[in-house]
Amino acid sequence: MKVLVINAGSSSIKFELYAMPQEQVLASGLVERIGESTSRLVWRDARDGRHTLERPIQDHAAGLELVLSLLCSGTDAPMESLDEIGAVGHRVVHGGEAFSQTVGVTAEVEAAIQAHAVLAPLHNPPNLLGIRVARQVLPDVPQVAVFDTAFHQTLPPHAYLYALPAELYREHRVRRYGFHGISHRFVAGRAAALLGRPLEQLRLISCHLGNGASICAIEAGRSVDTSMGMTPLEGLVMGTRCGDLDPAIPLYLQRQLGMDAAEVDRLLNKRSGMLGLSGRSNDLRELEQAAESGDADAAVAMQVYCYRIRKYIGAYTAALGSVDALVFTAGVGENSDVVRAAVLEGLAPMGYALDLDANRGLRGREADISAVDSRARVLVIPTDEELLIARDTYALAGHRAS
Amino acid sequence: MKVLVINAGSSSIKFELYAMPQEQVLASGLVERIGESTSRLVWRDARDGRHTLERPIQDHAAGLELVLSLLCSGTDAPMESLDEIGAVGHRVVHGGEAFSQTVGVTAEVEAAIQAHAVLAPLHNPPNLLGIRVARQVLPDVPQVAVFDTAFHQTLPPHAYLYALPAELYREHRVRRYGFHGISHRFVAGRAAALLGRPLEQLRLISCHLGNGASICAIEAGRSVDTSMGMTPLEGLVMGTRCGDLDPAIPLYLQRQLGMDAAEVDRLLNKRSGMLGLSGRSNDLRELEQAAESGDADAAVAMQVYCYRIRKYIGAYTAALGSVDALVFTAGVGENSDVVRAAVLEGLAPMGYALDLDANRGLRGREADISAVDSRARVLVIPTDEELLIARDTYALAGHRAS
Repeated sequence: MKVLVINAGSSSIKFELYAMPQEQVLASGLVERIGESTSRLVWRDARDGRHTLERPIQDHAAGLELVLSLLCSGTDAPMESLDEIGAVGHRVVHGGEAFSQTVGVTAEVEAAIQAHAVLAPLHNPPNLLGIRVARQVLPDVPQVAVFDTAFHQTLPPHAYLYALPAELYREHRVRRYGFHGISHRFVAGRAAALLGRPLEQLRLISCHLGNGASICAIEAGRSVDTSMGMTPLEGLVMGTRCGDLDPAIPLYLQRQLGMDAAEVDRLLNKRSGMLGLSGRSNDLRELEQAAESGDADAAVAMQVYCYRIRKYIGAYTAALGSVDALVFTAGVGENSDVVRAAVLEGLAPMGYALDLDANRGLRGREADISAVDSRARVLVIPTDEELLIARDTYALAGHRAS
Repeated sequence: MKVLVINAGSSSIKFELYAMPQEQVLASGLVERIGESTSRLVWRDARDGRHTLERPIQDHAAGLELVLSLLCSGTDAPMESLDEIGAVGHRVVHGGEAFSQTVGVTAEVEAAIQAHAVLAPLHNPPNLLGIRVARQVLPDVPQVAVFDTAFHQTLPPHAYLYALPAELYREHRVRRYGFHGISHRFVAGRAAALLGRPLEQLRLISCHLGNGASICAIEAGRSVDTSMGMTPLEGLVMGTRCGDLDPAIPLYLQRQLGMDAAEVDRLLNKRSGMLGLSGRSNDLRELEQAAESGDADAAVAMQVYCYRIRKYIGAYTAALGSVDALVFTAGVGENSDVVRAAVLEGLAPMGYALDLDANRGLRGREADISAVDSRARVLVIPTDEELLIARDTYALAGHRAS
C-alpha cells in the first residue's frame, strides 16, 4: 500500500509518498507560499526527476488536491488512483502529555491537538489544518498523527519539572516537553542497528543539529532528557532562536528597553541564535566560511554554538552515567565536519575521541567517526523523520488497507 | 591592624572585625530589620560569646555607629578605639565589566557601582549605601570594594555571550556575569592548598550550594564558566529562585496567565526554586527530612535539585576536558551528605567516585571524600567569603595603615 506523509506549515505542505512496507519513496515535494501569488509546487519523482509548477494556490486544500492530482497523472505517475493511498501520516509538533505514541486521528485527537496550540501556536494550528484538509480530500483514508513530543514522554519528573511553583505544572502543565522526538527516535534505532546491539542495552546521546537544534539522552530506547523545553526555544543555539538564557533577560528587555512581551518573543525566536550573534546569517555553512575568512563575529558565533553543544554532551553524559554512542544528525550534524570536530575537541577523557580522518569531509552518510580507543562510538546518521512517520502510519493503519 | 568587613543589605548590615594579617576574627555579627521597630544587633565576640541588643535602629548609619560603639566598649572589647581600624572591605554584588579585581573606593568606583544597579537592583544600592555610611562614620579610613562578579571576568566570550542580537551585548551589556565569585575564588585557593599543588596547574569545579547556588569551572585559578548569568536567577535550583528555565516561560506566564513583568519577576525570584517545587520550604534540611518521611513533593524537589547540579558537573567537565578536583561548599554543600551522594551517584565513569563512609555525616569541615580510585578528588571545603574580603582589603590598604 501507499502511505502519504504530510507536514503542514502555516503556508506550506511538505509531503512524501511511500510504498510500504518496502519503504520506497515514490515522490516527495513541497507546496510553498500558499495563499500568495507566487505559490508553487516543487516535487521529485522516484527517478529523482525534479518538477516545478508555479501557480497561485489559494489554500491548503487546493495545495493538497494539486499534489494528489499530480501524483496520479502522467506516464511516470507513482499511482494510478488515489485509492492506492492506504493511510496518511501527519507530523504534529505538540501532543503535550496527552500523547506518548502515534495515534489514529479521531475527533478527540483533533480536539487535543487544538488544545495544545497554546503551547505551540506556530505549529499545531497548521498541523491540524493539514489533518482536516486531508480528511476532506481523502475522506475514506485513515489519518494518523505522529507527534514530535511523544518520544520524550518517558522523561522522569526530575528532568521534566522546572523549579517553579508546583501549581504551574499541576494546573497549567508548565513543564519540559521536548521536540524533534521523531528524529531522535529514528537515529536511536539506526544507531542500534549500526552497533549491532539491541536498543534496550544502549545509552545514547543524539545531537539533532539543524536550523532548529536539540540534543537528547536516550536510555534503553527511551528519552530521559532533552534540551528543548516547554517550547522549542530552550537549549542549544539555533539558526534564529536563542536557546538557553538567563530567565531574567526577557523581563529585563521589557523593563529596561521598553519592549512588550510580543516583541521579546519575536526577538528571541526570530532575530537571535546564530543570526543575532553573527549579525549576518542563520546558515551555518555561510558562517563557517565567513569565520574561516576572518569574520570575527561569525567566528565567535561558531564558538558559542559548538560550546553549548559540548556542555550538553557533558551534562547528558552525567545524566546517563556512561554512554555507548553519540550521534550527530540533521543538516549541520550530518554535514559539518568542522562543527563535529570543534564540539568534541579535547573530550577524549570523557570518552569521545574522533578519528579526524574519518570525520574530515564526511557529509550526509552513515559512518562511525570515532577513534579506535574512544570509549563511546561517535556516529553520523542522516535522520529521516518522514520514513519514521511512514512506518508508524503503516504499523497503525496498514492492517485496515487492502 | 584591624579590618572591618561589611556586607550591607536592604535592611541589614553583616560585619566581621579581623586582626590582620593574623586573620583572627575579633567579632562578627548582624544588624537586622533596620528601620523597623523590631530591629536588633546580634554579635559574637572573639571568645564566641553571643550578644543580642534589641533596639529601634533607624537607618544604616545608626546601625553602623552602634556596631562600632559596641566594638570599643566593655572590658572584653575587641578594640580600644576606632583608630585601630585600618581599612573597611565591602562586599559589592555587581561590578559588571568595570571591575575584574578588588579596588579602593573612589568617586568613580561609587559611580560605577551605582551604574550597575540596573543589573542588580536588590543588591548594589544597599552595598553602595554601606560604603557611604562607612565613609561618613569612618571618614579617614580607606574603603575597599570586593565584587562578587570580578572573579568571573576571565570568562571567554563563548561562555559569557548569550545567543542574542550582538547589539544587546555591545550597547546594553547583556551577557553572563556570574556571582559568588568571592566564594569560588576562596575555595579554589583552599583546594590547591589541600591538594598540595599550584592553583595554576589545576582544573577545578566548585559547587557553591547555599540558599543561592552556583557552580563554577576554574582553570589555572581563572573562572572559565559559571552557572549564574546576567543576574543571579540563572543556573542551579535555589531556595526560592527557579534557575534554568525555557526563556519562553516568562512570556507565557504574562500572556496566558495575565501576570505583568514585575509579578513574573517576583514569582521566579521569590516563590520558585525549592520552595515552589516542594510547596513547603526553601530550607534543604527541612526538605531532606520531609522527603525521608515520605513527602512526595519534597522528594521530587530534592531530585530536581540534585539532578541539576549533576548536569552542570557534566557540562563543566566537558568544558574543562578533565578535572582535578570537585569542591562542595556553602550551607548545603558543606553539610548535606545526602545531596553530595545523590549528585555523584553513578558518576564514577566520569571520574567522580565518592568514599561513602568519608562522606557520611561529614559536616562543615575540610575533607577529601573521594574514593581512592576516583580520577578527580572530591573535596568538602567550608567557604569563608569574609576572610577573602579581609585579605583583599588588607593587601590593598594595609600599607597605608600604621
